[in-house]
Amino acid sequence: MDLVRANWIAVDWGTTNMRAWAMGGGDKILARVNSDRGMGTLNQAEFEPALLELIAPWLHETDVTDVVACGMVGARQGWVEAPYGVVPCEPFSGESIISFSPWDQRLRMHIIAGLSQAEPADVMRGEETQIAGLLAGDQGFKGVICLPGTHTKWAWVEGEKITKFSTHMTGELFSLLAEKSVLRHTIASEGWDDAEFSKSFNSALENPVEITAHLFSLRAEALIGDLLPEVARARLSALLLGLEFAAMRTNWQGQKIAIIGSDRIAKIYQQAFLLQNEQPIMFDAEALTLGGLINAHSQLQLKELK
Amino acid sequence: MDLVRANWIAVDWGTTNMRAWAMGGGDKILARVNSDRGMGTLNQAEFEPALLELIAPWLHETDVTDVVACGMVGARQGWVEAPYGVVPCEPFSGESIISFSPWDQRLRMHIIAGLSQAEPADVMRGEETQIAGLLAGDQGFKGVICLPGTHTKWAWVEGEKITKFSTHMTGELFSLLAEKSVLRHTIASEGWDDAEFSKSFNSALENPVEITAHLFSLRAEALIGDLLPEVARARLSALLLGLEFAAMRTNWQGQKIAIIGSDRIAKIYQQAFLLQNEQPIMFDAEALTLGGLINAHSQLQLKELK
Repeated sequence: MDLVRANWIAVDWGTTNMRAWAMGGGDKILARVNSDRGMGTLNQAEFEPALLELIAPWLHETDVTDVVACGMVGARQGWVEAPYGVVPCEPFSGESIISFSPWDQRLRMHIIAGLSQAEPADVMRGEETQIAGLLAGDQGFKGVICLPGTHTKWAWVEGEKITKFSTHMTGELFSLLAEKSVLRHTIASEGWDDAEFSKSFNSALENPVEITAHLFSLRAEALIGDLLPEVARARLSALLLGLEFAAMRTNWQGQKIAIIGSDRIAKIYQQAFLLQNEQPIMFDAEALTLGGLINAHSQLQLKELK
Repeated sequence: MDLVRANWIAVDWGTTNMRAWAMGGGDKILARVNSDRGMGTLNQAEFEPALLELIAPWLHETDVTDVVACGMVGARQGWVEAPYGVVPCEPFSGESIISFSPWDQRLRMHIIAGLSQAEPADVMRGEETQIAGLLAGDQGFKGVICLPGTHTKWAWVEGEKITKFSTHMTGELFSLLAEKSVLRHTIASEGWDDAEFSKSFNSALENPVEITAHLFSLRAEALIGDLLPEVARARLSALLLGLEFAAMRTNWQGQKIAIIGSDRIAKIYQQAFLLQNEQPIMFDAEALTLGGLINAHSQLQLKELK
């Protein structure tokens, strides 16, 4: 195995996972590691050992290595709380990044703060870094950015600032209904039906309020009819996305739209936009996270030079 | 203890509980027992022993006693499947009640079938008997009947018939969100705030589609603001009921409304109607269930006389 010595280290530290990259000069990736030691599994004293376990081989014995991290590591239940910035604002600035020296003197930590919004109340941690990654490649971006996930975020960006954002529990509702509700007998854990999704999404977008009755209909149709579990899965997804897209309609219709994500759920959001004749631009979430961390690292270097 | 010999026996056998009444002549209640041996806890062979365990003391040694039962006992996973009647129809008729002799020759069983609706697909088992109980006391009832619960049912009644009905998973969504979602950190398990419910219900009814964003706002407002867990509980309830009432609006506005139920959740539905200047008539669910079972017993006797 080649010996890797990092110029600096980038870390994406979420609730359930962490990822770290050993970075060389000119933002070259020298190495990449993963771990399941997310924020949710650690108490405050366990963050530093968890990080060292992964990145110790990359450190210099005498020099200090900068580590730039984003995500839930900066939450109140994280390593060190990085108080939320408030929108409208840039995704982050040199001032909104919390820097500190941990016990191990080979490290200098920098944690990117999340963002909050007063009214309607909302918060994000980690997505601001992905948005910074998008803006690093397209400074003039003006439009809506959709970040699908357990809690899907929609952010409006203009003039390099996030002007407002909105979080939707659609992904979590899908999991709860498909796995923990009476519908669990009716919904396949895998499988899909594209035609059903298309039909049901467009109809749900037109009549979003009827969702409370349409949910139980899935169960009833399986009992008295011949609803296939894969069809039911696609329809449940369509009903929930229809409600979310209806709530956001005036914000995406006719706008420039970007989707950050590359997994299955991002592709479903893409399909939903295409059904409404909108053409979202797709961005890879991991690439943009790293792009945002690189951007943060540059801002920190500029700050030191001043 | 007095010796009780039943003229006939009424049984309400749901998913999680069963209740039985020893009935005398003239529909006098002689005794009442409860058990947690609901349909969900029993396999097909266990229904008869579970029933006998409760009612054996009420049986005559030589005569046959009629047992009239409603609820999930007639489901496919129940004792004997009683195939759904199809609306529009009366809550039940002598013909829609399945009669059979079980192993124990002192019993003759009669199970009331549930009802189904083809489009939109829907089913009920047990509620039809409560509605029959209401109609037994008010044959001319014309209006909408709301039966709040885990799966709240709305039924339209006219000319002694159920013309259509609609099931809403509002209660189950509330439990899933309050207990199993990220909101569980934010929602009190007890407590309430009347003023918050009133304000949020009226606003949710006007803007029901925004619910997907408003749910996560509960979490955010607790993180960055000072949202009390009891206030959050009332608001979550208001958001979900607002969506349900919006979906049903054209069906209840200006109509005669009855609520069948007496627990906490029925009182919340009552409050929601009052906020919209509607005056629902309140009925006790247990009393109407027994009323419906008495009515079914009368129909069975008439059938035998023919």
